[in-house]
Amino acid sequence: MNKEQLIKQIFAKKSFLCVGLDTDIKKIPEHLKESENPIFDFNKAIIDATAPYCVAYKPNLAFYESLGVKGLIAFEQTVEYLKKEYPEHFIIADAKRGDIGNTSKMYARTFFEEYDIDALTVAPYMGEDSVKPFLEYEDKWVILLALTSNKGSNDFQMTEDKNGKRLFEKVLEKSQEWGNEDNMMYVVGATQGSMFENIRTHVPHHFLLVPGVGAQGGSLQEVCKYGMNNECGLLVNSSRGIIYASNGKDFAETAATKAKELQEEMAVELEKIK
Amino acid sequence: MNKEQLIKQIFAKKSFLCVGLDTDIKKIPEHLKESENPIFDFNKAIIDATAPYCVAYKPNLAFYESLGVKGLIAFEQTVEYLKKEYPEHFIIADAKRGDIGNTSKMYARTFFEEYDIDALTVAPYMGEDSVKPFLEYEDKWVILLALTSNKGSNDFQMTEDKNGKRLFEKVLEKSQEWGNEDNMMYVVGATQGSMFENIRTHVPHHFLLVPGVGAQGGSLQEVCKYGMNNECGLLVNSSRGIIYASNGKDFAETAATKAKELQEEMAVELEKIK
Repeated sequence: MNKEQLIKQIFAKKSFLCVGLDTDIKKIPEHLKESENPIFDFNKAIIDATAPYCVAYKPNLAFYESLGVKGLIAFEQTVEYLKKEYPEHFIIADAKRGDIGNTSKMYARTFFEEYDIDALTVAPYMGEDSVKPFLEYEDKWVILLALTSNKGSNDFQMTEDKNGKRLFEKVLEKSQEWGNEDNMMYVVGATQGSMFENIRTHVPHHFLLVPGVGAQGGSLQEVCKYGMNNECGLLVNSSRGIIYASNGKDFAETAATKAKELQEEMAVELEKIK
Repeated sequence: MNKEQLIKQIFAKKSFLCVGLDTDIKKIPEHLKESENPIFDFNKAIIDATAPYCVAYKPNLAFYESLGVKGLIAFEQTVEYLKKEYPEHFIIADAKRGDIGNTSKMYARTFFEEYDIDALTVAPYMGEDSVKPFLEYEDKWVILLALTSNKGSNDFQMTEDKNGKRLFEKVLEKSQEWGNEDNMMYVVGATQGSMFENIRTHVPHHFLLVPGVGAQGGSLQEVCKYGMNNECGLLVNSSRGIIYASNGKDFAETAATKAKELQEEMAVELEKIK
């Protein structure tokens, strides 16, 4: 999916919500655990319920990998289901990959050719040749970690160099030599709301993937105030706050309610840039 | 495997060689491609041939993931085979994972509980809570990226802070607040030979995992000169230089020859610290 198509979806649906499919076998409703394929069944129900309110889905690979072959099959089924039933939804594999060139090339082949996913989260630590192989695919996206939503983001990302430039700022700047606003987004945590103003001085036109609204405590309004640009420029992710809002038989219905609530808040924010 | 056991293996076998199982379906010998399970068959032959000359194996997850479920099965079979037939070999999953706390916990569970592997490579960019979940397992290891062997390592790892401390040095220092020489190693590329002296001032007693000897151009002698400590303190990895040394029917035999050559060079280096 290219940038224009993504923006079109956002304004058509009045939503820039990404639903994170962090599907944990230990957290899904009891009645599903007896099914033959509980992870996929859970995802399918969540997707069917929330699709009207979101523009993207983000399966988190760790949760699928933790179940070995069974988990990987559930991941593949989820992607296939999305591509078949909801082809207008943007699919992000949250895998935070990044390795030397020939290995990154293998990861790129996996996610962009085999699974034909739209975007992959990538870690910047290893630099240019670890990121570039992901940028060689048309209408596919690297979502590079810049300033993450966790406490540990202070350990290295905020380190200032001799000129007072912080590491995440250096990542934002340097990576623009490798990609552009049509094939690169950045992860910026919602818990860092006040930082968005600074971040927009470096990447005014790029899309930002924003985790941390909800369970991690970030505020949607603050993110929009400082982070939104005139094309929206945001994909705001919520995982636990939606998919585990209920663990009863009404889990999908409750997920839809939570997604709709966020979508309605997003519609208000989108009105402001119309 | 704990540090003492690893050191014992190194001195018993006069080797600190790690064989990288970067098994690419496109690069294995033609005659194997017709088999039902070419990746595992290739690995099994390489392992049987090289086991006398190495102390560790390092499957690179990217290569297995690129084949989807089939690849994951081959990875699992390889790990099972190693654990059963060569229980004294140290197994490193080269996956370069790292995510927010609850996600890193899932990855830790996968690699240390499900697969029961000895060590996992981890990326430091997201800081403390992305690394700590991997340190909660007895006799399991985090191998944290410090200074990698690729060209892109210059982009961020070499960035100096206000006090002239480079990012990789900060990673070495900061991470010692989280783990110790009994549960943490560092990736330091062999292509950065002259840097080992500096690195040893930060981590004199830690093991270092050293990729980049061979195909990437690093020198074993230089790495040993500057990086070896009195317990050896090195695991030197070679992947392509061993496993693809021949792509004929003699591939395993040739891999053994290459591994033996390295082992013999290593024996000479180990003599020096006896």
